[in-house]
Amino acid sequence: MPNDMVQNTSIFTRRESKARSYCRGMPAVFDTARGSELFDADGNRFIDFLAGCSSLNYGHNDPDLKAALIDHIASDGLAHGLDLHTGAKGAFLTAFEDHILKPRHMDHKVMFTGPTGANAVEAAMKLARKVTGRTNIIAFTNGFHGVTMGALAATGNGYHRGGAAMDKAGVTRMPFDGYAEGVDSAALLDQMLGDPSGGIDAPAAILFETVQGEGGLNAASADWVRKMQDIAHKHGALLIIDDIQAGCGRTGTFFSFEEMDVQPDIVTMAKSISGFGLPMALMLVRPQHDVFGPAEHNGTFRGNTHAFVTARAAIEKFWATDAFQRELAEKSMLLTTALSDIADLVPGAVLKGRGLMQGVDVGSGELAARICARAYEMGLVIETSGPNDEVVKILAPLTTPASLFREGFDILTQAARDVLGELKLAAE
Amino acid sequence: MPNDMVQNTSIFTRRESKARSYCRGMPAVFDTARGSELFDADGNRFIDFLAGCSSLNYGHNDPDLKAALIDHIASDGLAHGLDLHTGAKGAFLTAFEDHILKPRHMDHKVMFTGPTGANAVEAAMKLARKVTGRTNIIAFTNGFHGVTMGALAATGNGYHRGGAAMDKAGVTRMPFDGYAEGVDSAALLDQMLGDPSGGIDAPAAILFETVQGEGGLNAASADWVRKMQDIAHKHGALLIIDDIQAGCGRTGTFFSFEEMDVQPDIVTMAKSISGFGLPMALMLVRPQHDVFGPAEHNGTFRGNTHAFVTARAAIEKFWATDAFQRELAEKSMLLTTALSDIADLVPGAVLKGRGLMQGVDVGSGELAARICARAYEMGLVIETSGPNDEVVKILAPLTTPASLFREGFDILTQAARDVLGELKLAAE
Amino acid sequence: MPNDMVQNTSIFTRRESKARSYCRGMPAVFDTARGSELFDADGNRFIDFLAGCSSLNYGHNDPDLKAALIDHIASDGLAHGLDLHTGAKGAFLTAFEDHILKPRHMDHKVMFTGPTGANAVEAAMKLARKVTGRTNIIAFTNGFHGVTMGALAATGNGYHRGGAAMDKAGVTRMPFDGYAEGVDSAALLDQMLGDPSGGIDAPAAILFETVQGEGGLNAASADWVRKMQDIAHKHGALLIIDDIQAGCGRTGTFFSFEEMDVQPDIVTMAKSISGFGLPMALMLVRPQHDVFGPAEHNGTFRGNTHAFVTARAAIEKFWATDAFQRELAEKSMLLTTALSDIADLVPGAVLKGRGLMQGVDVGSGELAARICARAYEMGLVIETSGPNDEVVKILAPLTTPASLFREGFDILTQAARDVLGELKLAAE
Amino acid sequence: MPNDMVQNTSIFTRRESKARSYCRGMPAVFDTARGSELFDADGNRFIDFLAGCSSLNYGHNDPDLKAALIDHIASDGLAHGLDLHTGAKGAFLTAFEDHILKPRHMDHKVMFTGPTGANAVEAAMKLARKVTGRTNIIAFTNGFHGVTMGALAATGNGYHRGGAAMDKAGVTRMPFDGYAEGVDSAALLDQMLGDPSGGIDAPAAILFETVQGEGGLNAASADWVRKMQDIAHKHGALLIIDDIQAGCGRTGTFFSFEEMDVQPDIVTMAKSISGFGLPMALMLVRPQHDVFGPAEHNGTFRGNTHAFVTARAAIEKFWATDAFQRELAEKSMLLTTALSDIADLVPGAVLKGRGLMQGVDVGSGELAARICARAYEMGLVIETSGPNDEVVKILAPLTTPASLFREGFDILTQAARDVLGELKLAAE
Repeated sequence: MPNDMVQNTSIFTRRESKARSYCRGMPAVFDTARGSELFDADGNRFIDFLAGCSSLNYGHNDPDLKAALIDHIASDGLAHGLDLHTGAKGAFLTAFEDHILKPRHMDHKVMFTGPTGANAVEAAMKLARKVTGRTNIIAFTNGFHGVTMGALAATGNGYHRGGAAMDKAGVTRMPFDGYAEGVDSAALLDQMLGDPSGGIDAPAAILFETVQGEGGLNAASADWVRKMQDIAHKHGALLIIDDIQAGCGRTGTFFSFEEMDVQPDIVTMAKSISGFGLPMALMLVRPQHDVFGPAEHNGTFRGNTHAFVTARAAIEKFWATDAFQRELAEKSMLLTTALSDIADLVPGAVLKGRGLMQGVDVGSGELAARICARAYEMGLVIETSGPNDEVVKILAPLTTPASLFREGFDILTQAARDVLGELKLAAE
Repeated sequence: MPNDMVQNTSIFTRRESKARSYCRGMPAVFDTARGSELFDADGNRFIDFLAGCSSLNYGHNDPDLKAALIDHIASDGLAHGLDLHTGAKGAFLTAFEDHILKPRHMDHKVMFTGPTGANAVEAAMKLARKVTGRTNIIAFTNGFHGVTMGALAATGNGYHRGGAAMDKAGVTRMPFDGYAEGVDSAALLDQMLGDPSGGIDAPAAILFETVQGEGGLNAASADWVRKMQDIAHKHGALLIIDDIQAGCGRTGTFFSFEEMDVQPDIVTMAKSISGFGLPMALMLVRPQHDVFGPAEHNGTFRGNTHAFVTARAAIEKFWATDAFQRELAEKSMLLTTALSDIADLVPGAVLKGRGLMQGVDVGSGELAARICARAYEMGLVIETSGPNDEVVKILAPLTTPASLFREGFDILTQAARDVLGELKLAAE
Repeated sequence: MPNDMVQNTSIFTRRESKARSYCRGMPAVFDTARGSELFDADGNRFIDFLAGCSSLNYGHNDPDLKAALIDHIASDGLAHGLDLHTGAKGAFLTAFEDHILKPRHMDHKVMFTGPTGANAVEAAMKLARKVTGRTNIIAFTNGFHGVTMGALAATGNGYHRGGAAMDKAGVTRMPFDGYAEGVDSAALLDQMLGDPSGGIDAPAAILFETVQGEGGLNAASADWVRKMQDIAHKHGALLIIDDIQAGCGRTGTFFSFEEMDVQPDIVTMAKSISGFGLPMALMLVRPQHDVFGPAEHNGTFRGNTHAFVTARAAIEKFWATDAFQRELAEKSMLLTTALSDIADLVPGAVLKGRGLMQGVDVGSGELAARICARAYEMGLVIETSGPNDEVVKILAPLTTPASLFREGFDILTQAARDVLGELKLAAE
Repeated sequence: MPNDMVQNTSIFTRRESKARSYCRGMPAVFDTARGSELFDADGNRFIDFLAGCSSLNYGHNDPDLKAALIDHIASDGLAHGLDLHTGAKGAFLTAFEDHILKPRHMDHKVMFTGPTGANAVEAAMKLARKVTGRTNIIAFTNGFHGVTMGALAATGNGYHRGGAAMDKAGVTRMPFDGYAEGVDSAALLDQMLGDPSGGIDAPAAILFETVQGEGGLNAASADWVRKMQDIAHKHGALLIIDDIQAGCGRTGTFFSFEEMDVQPDIVTMAKSISGFGLPMALMLVRPQHDVFGPAEHNGTFRGNTHAFVTARAAIEKFWATDAFQRELAEKSMLLTTALSDIADLVPGAVLKGRGLMQGVDVGSGELAARICARAYEMGLVIETSGPNDEVVKILAPLTTPASLFREGFDILTQAARDVLGELKLAAE
């Protein structure tokens, strides 16, 4: 366990807004990081099972990406290029076409939105509305798509919704796959959309994550995702898959949906797309729906050239062959096994999620919070998820070596044991 | 004039969305840049009078900022830190407090929003609504605040508004300072807000740019800005100044409003705040209004550590003493003189803006476009602004040396002469 | 069958808007009416199984109501009284208190809204929002609540919703009782409202009809209605029952919900409340929710004194004792029997509704329309209902004598036989 | 002065909602009325200078209208006819065509909306949106158009707007003619609509009253109204004149705009259109804009046959020749003279309005309220108007005989004298 973690944080208290969050439960002042390890100002080491909420799928400061970035900067490579043509963007697009789109038979165009996931979602929602001339977008219980006004309308979380302090328009909420016992949510949506008096306006799009990262690691079945595609097209709507958290290998394949036999009209990506944790977001859109006029959706930072450099390097390093993907399959199994062991400790606990995006629903937010807090004391950075924060969620870098994985799980297991022991004592 | 600018741009045509824009009129593939100069893949050189739309106020790849960034990366400094405490963030906050906030007697808290200007505006609008329990925000003709749904409601531009393909709520539009002949827009706003049947719901905030960067370089008078502050507070609203384009020295002082004797409740910043063109945005908020709960407004990239590094270096290099600001005053005069000469060439032309954010209204979008296109051919990157794109706008890096300024103006003058000569010929 | 029904309708064609509707399928020019019979300009007689869409529950020109009205007018009784105290209003309120509210142990206050059902619904929605400080109102598939913007948001019918030509806000749509096979719509609503990430904003009210008059005569079970009351109160919302079409005895009791052991926070009434077909609407509201300020919801015609006169007379004539209600029970059985006979003629036909608000779902809108058209030719005024207009709906005056009922059913039966015969012939 | 006005009003206190309003300041229980006189239960007589807020332009119980109505009812004439053809409707349409539309060269179609002014306004706004495919409607300071959600968005009054307890969409507010000193509100609107970055979405309609009845009797000039027509058509919008309060002769001609050389695309009417104070509303629409489908905008009471009977009788009695209109011209002058005398009593008082729709702005709502209260004590029913209720408003029946007019003015003058005397005493 890290010693002497009391660093000077007065500048944050004095000048940073109360909206700050992660630093409240994990108050260390972090300075450096390599792979799956973080180090604070006093040299304390932490294992990272959070990975910037899946923004660091290839770990911190991957040496090849880092070298490419330093090389770019050192040679006065452009840092900011609006949406001008740049060599860095061209190289990224070429790599993305060669190693991602072509092998998956995807004819999508790439639109660089503002470099936040929310911005990509906003662009997707606007585009679907422009394409269809309709306003209504179907979103789901526990979906999380960002907190700017357009995206927030689609986000289910009440705490975030409340932050807008005004009503949000243009979204109809439906139960997600498996949400309500006995409810076939695909059939219900299809029936309501098909009913002339169903009261749901004709939709511009159906929008969801295949695995709800913030909503509790609820994983949609391939069958349900296919049905959503069918329902969308039957009712003249676009299928938008928000792959911001579940994409870039997190579920075991580059896209979370690629083994589901669907072809989304729009895919949103962010978080790990730069490969290095740099702000970058994009939207993939089928050519027939690529109808924004020049700069109709714009933004100053839509050409983060540094991110293009690392994104290209990441694509080439991890996705040019299938070696990495095969590794992910193995690690997913390892993760499932390890989490099963932890789940066995907690009465009623349930495994959630899939691939490298799994967690344990321990039944209560309070218990989950205590386990994560205890783990942090022992040097593991990890967070909860779910409507009541009741899921202990593992989002380790995909590149985490097996030994570190094991070390992290050992901490987590011990944390669970400690907390459950304390609870048992308190109950006696 | 650059020769051989026909580079291979087929990857962009093939895979980039039609939403791309700047690259259409300026098709070179840019690779490197230093100070106020850009270089394309073939080594052609361009003078940059656009500066990433004011995102590169300190020029491209400033050597000190660049060194700090490379040093940070080389030593495995954190790239992505969510809103955890990081040394880089602490150092930025300390520099920002010491050199910006304290000397200006500002007690504001700093909130790192998602790293786009639009995200900072969304956060500001949400916060004002949360603080006041009201929805309505007063925005102005020709204001530009971003294109995500919340911010877009405040943006005046019809082309961008149309991109949403749905109605936007929560904003009342009023004429900007000097917009309509004979209309005292402050008095009109005050009267309508004070009238129980005025039909404008009690406002949460009054939101504007002191110089409308996209709207045609319309500069509000200090008197009008003070009146807006008075009206806001009289009617229980917050004053939000969007200093995204006009801030960071662009008008001659760090904030665009600092010689106006106002204290905005909220200030939004982005573009040049990182100093290096990296995605970063923040919101300054008076402590009494700092009421977002933890992560109530959140976003994956709200801790772009690379940007913190360069932002700190920029603050320390340019704003620790008043030398830079004095330089800006001189350059502003130089700019006014040079633009006056160009304006003299065009019958009816009018100077717009202030500080290093000036331009010439040449009376028609077509004429302005032709002048900029001709200038580009001669190696000058420059763009237009205004409701009809009728203003040739100069947004050169603030650090542009006098000689380069002169070279750029010579090109612009020649471009104007060429185009006016062609028009004269065509008319004969 | 009426002869010579070709009357001069050119003035309607020439000057009445294309929005006119009933007159298209039933083009006679009606002049007089008594009880359950209508007469056109040429003396042709029609039996009325439509009753002004349940606005004429006591038939046309009931002699006692008529006498009271003529007496009032002849003695220069007030016709229009805004919301001043009038003797007529006082007498109505006294009768309504004595014979309706008190015996049912209802402590509700009476608010006279503008004299349309939609206006009462608008007032109810506004009031629920004012009481709770929330915006969201839960409404249901196939609900019909009017076509003004506030009420229309709650109405499910897509044709009517489209008429607004803009988005409607503030309503969440849920499946009605029995809507979707296997879906417990009460449990689903409760789960989504109780889920912090359910994505349905905390509701101001749950709003529905116990029998959906326009939506196809879908009757909610008492159990479901009670659950809705429980869910509303559990989640801090008001229960609003829209009894505009199903109230005033239509289902067999004065209120449609009175045998369900619920106490709605708000009840809306219109249609038959005047007893004579005159425009009148009101809202009943529990005293603790009676929080509109004076004239906060107002309207010029909220005191239709003529309607107060007939409404009082109707209450006193039909509801002072339980004789009328006992009659309704008998007639309901008669109606069920008669409709069963008709349903037997149509393969797959299903009985819908309850009380004197029943119909036959004949499976297709086309078939239902042909049956009604044929019935009209034979002198029966009747219409369809349901999302696809597939339900032949009986809304005869509650006072219709058995002999006329029988005559009407005979026509309807013959119409069904004729149409089915034609279809059989065509198929051969 | 009426004696013994303390009647039993306990039923109202006990059972009527707190939303009741007029009865608070004028607590008599009214029973009968003839012409311009009201009588309470105890036989006390009041002169009516309110006329049901202009719903009783032809006075109470006009003998010819009354006879026609009794005759209709006595002969079992239809009371409720949905939108079926009825003889009564045909006769009204014929009279309206002959005596109103044709002589004024108006080709408008008549649409019978729900029988409230608000419903007509809702229909007009929906239709303009349907016709243009646009949402935005321009409305004005101090406009009053009703309190249902669609109409309320256009209403300026903050108290009524607040009653909705949610945001209202689809309306842009502009200053009315003469609203703000030195502001040419027509030029401002035209400039903002014509500006691609003006921030006002392309409008579906421009909507206003030519004299703002509730907003303080502000009368638009003919020139301004014509400019609004020009601006509407120039920008592809419809011109909607809300003639609900100012129509039916109130300003001296049948329509308030008929001497202004405009041809509105839509006109809304209600209040006095039935002639007898019965609920009735309609919308006039140019044939090319008559695009609602059958029942697309509907409502149970859109065929109030009793109102058709009295409306026809009123048209034939008052508008078949120009005698009545000539009378109105004389009475308008009489009213102006009488009000000038009263205005002379109050320092700073200003005359407002035109025709038989005039009043005195006495400078404060408190003073106006006291004058009206004192007048009521002396037997005059009269109310205030304006954003601060600062205008004593005369809305006497147009048929008021000169002697009664004089009697009413004498009371009002005495009331003003009394109140001013009390104030002087109190100040000494």
